[in-house]
Amino acid sequence: MSTSLTFEIEAKDPACGARVGRLGLAHGGVETPIFMPVGTQGSVKALSQEDLRTIGAQIILGNAYHLYLRPGTDLLEKAGGLHGFMNWDRPILTDSGGFQVFSLASLNKVTDEGVAFQSHIDGSRHFMTPEKAIDIQTSIGADIIMCFDECTSYPVERETAAASMRMTHDWAARCKTRWLERDSATQNLFGIVQGSVFEDLRRESAAGLVDVGFPGYAIGGVSVGEAKAEMRQVVEWTAPLLPEDQPRYLMGVGPPEDLLHAIEHGVDLFDCVMPTRNARNGSLFTCAGRLNIKNQRFKSDFGPLDPACGCPVCRTYTRAYLSHLWRSGEILALRLNTLHNLCFMLQLAARARQAIRTGDFAAFKDDFLDRYTRAGDA
Amino acid sequence: MSTSLTFEIEAKDPACGARVGRLGLAHGGVETPIFMPVGTQGSVKALSQEDLRTIGAQIILGNAYHLYLRPGTDLLEKAGGLHGFMNWDRPILTDSGGFQVFSLASLNKVTDEGVAFQSHIDGSRHFMTPEKAIDIQTSIGADIIMCFDECTSYPVERETAAASMRMTHDWAARCKTRWLERDSATQNLFGIVQGSVFEDLRRESAAGLVDVGFPGYAIGGVSVGEAKAEMRQVVEWTAPLLPEDQPRYLMGVGPPEDLLHAIEHGVDLFDCVMPTRNARNGSLFTCAGRLNIKNQRFKSDFGPLDPACGCPVCRTYTRAYLSHLWRSGEILALRLNTLHNLCFMLQLAARARQAIRTGDFAAFKDDFLDRYTRAGDA
Repeated sequence: MSTSLTFEIEAKDPACGARVGRLGLAHGGVETPIFMPVGTQGSVKALSQEDLRTIGAQIILGNAYHLYLRPGTDLLEKAGGLHGFMNWDRPILTDSGGFQVFSLASLNKVTDEGVAFQSHIDGSRHFMTPEKAIDIQTSIGADIIMCFDECTSYPVERETAAASMRMTHDWAARCKTRWLERDSATQNLFGIVQGSVFEDLRRESAAGLVDVGFPGYAIGGVSVGEAKAEMRQVVEWTAPLLPEDQPRYLMGVGPPEDLLHAIEHGVDLFDCVMPTRNARNGSLFTCAGRLNIKNQRFKSDFGPLDPACGCPVCRTYTRAYLSHLWRSGEILALRLNTLHNLCFMLQLAARARQAIRTGDFAAFKDDFLDRYTRAGDA
Repeated sequence: MSTSLTFEIEAKDPACGARVGRLGLAHGGVETPIFMPVGTQGSVKALSQEDLRTIGAQIILGNAYHLYLRPGTDLLEKAGGLHGFMNWDRPILTDSGGFQVFSLASLNKVTDEGVAFQSHIDGSRHFMTPEKAIDIQTSIGADIIMCFDECTSYPVERETAAASMRMTHDWAARCKTRWLERDSATQNLFGIVQGSVFEDLRRESAAGLVDVGFPGYAIGGVSVGEAKAEMRQVVEWTAPLLPEDQPRYLMGVGPPEDLLHAIEHGVDLFDCVMPTRNARNGSLFTCAGRLNIKNQRFKSDFGPLDPACGCPVCRTYTRAYLSHLWRSGEILALRLNTLHNLCFMLQLAARARQAIRTGDFAAFKDDFLDRYTRAGDA
């Protein structure tokens, strides 16, 4: 397999599946477990690339569906890929667009060949195939690219989930073939395990994809509406089925408590729009739980947003000022809130890594959750 | 007069009224001529205080009307004034709120005593007097504070303008009395010359205010709808009537060409929402004129926004990326556009200072305007 990815496990927690790894990619190294900020359209909403560097983002996401529709692959190729276009020199992962084609676009027809859909921007008609999804991601040039998959909705009948998962496997094999043809040595293709909330399907999916063989594997089709307990059950089933010595990525997760749960079961990579979306709605993470900056009581609170946080927002501004920015409709509110929430997620991952190295992950997790779930007001 | 302001003229252009000065204020020094970014509600829209430092902002504006209504003077006093509240340690100037009371609020009644108005936020009723305007500005704690004035609309009858100007003089005297009573040694009160577009009224206003005596003087009531030529005429009449050894502030101006015109006639301080507001509408300053980033041709233009500009945006991002951010509705577009436009104004002032020091202001201005007005597309 022509992969440029390296993955070295540097530490394992003796009491659980948690591990610390170092992922080597064309644009640099990534310490795992890591949270990846989502920059759907070539911008992590409300932040600059300089902001991302300031808070220590090591790898960010782009979305192939969005970037294919706008600005388009021709332009991205001319710009030197997404890295050149947005002037970000650290690693990028692109989602294949499967999730967006099925959730955002107007879906016209799904066949074994691919998916006909209409753009959510201008209604233009497109036909996406596994091969085209790889071609698009080759133009974008991310360090990690994803197979084109069908992300089943929830709830779903077992037979529907099984059929969808098997089509996703056919697509995964076609994606791999195309990726090998393109011979884009700086890019690494991950397979995506599907199978909804059915253990045997997840098992079949993991085995099938490992059989095809990829530089890394993702757990997909979670956070689509299932209960938290079901999502966690899927992680507990699936993570141990994936090769120990390769990176594992849980797509679209998530809240701090779910991140820690998945880390405990050996997951390495995470992404979620929740920290950024919540921030733009005034909902902010703190070590003592979530708070909503719209709350009346913050108007005259001159303390930092999170006394336990060392981010630029908590070091610089008060809750009273953040409350004022929100009430006044100032654009700066969106940026400072986003900066803090992302920094919170990155610090959480860094603290998890530290705890794994010292073999204290379970104690760290319990301690964190004890304070995090006790006092939140969200 | 208990003023902490110092003003030293370091250079004069031999061929015109332009001068370079150093304004000493409680929160630091300011090189003049200078452009002051407007932070109406305690935030320069779309920028952080760190951004302002990065682009070299030396003094910013706050607005007493807005800050009085929200977050209120009680809160600002508890926060250590606006400086503490927004964590900005360089100088601040506050407008008295006169302009906003007459333009934004629902005006109920103007008497010699003061102005009854209703908040534009919640309709609450307030009565503003010259004394109260000073008290509010004392709570806010800016380095330079402004007299409460009536800003006459345009066009206006000569007699109306005269009566308004004379009331403004009475108010200016009351403002000064209150300022002396408050004995806020770190703050410096400026008088505001009114008189609309009538030369004799401007003359009477300047003389009357100089007679009362202030640490600095502003030219008010321009940029309210009069033609550009009329505005310039007012500046040419008024600036020479103000004390040579004190700072002169042209309120609400403005476009680069008007800034240079006023500098030529001896004005030192400027503020305007235009650079920030334009930025949020995609209209950007370059040395080759204004451009609108919405323009189709920038979609695939991989050059910097302004090749002659050294700002963080021009050094980091392409026109194609800025165009994409705008088209995608990304919040980052507002910030990068604002950062550039303000940096452009600050660089323009810095270049003007340099030209005055070398006695080349007229040549610099001609050269700048030649390129600036030739190729713009806005």
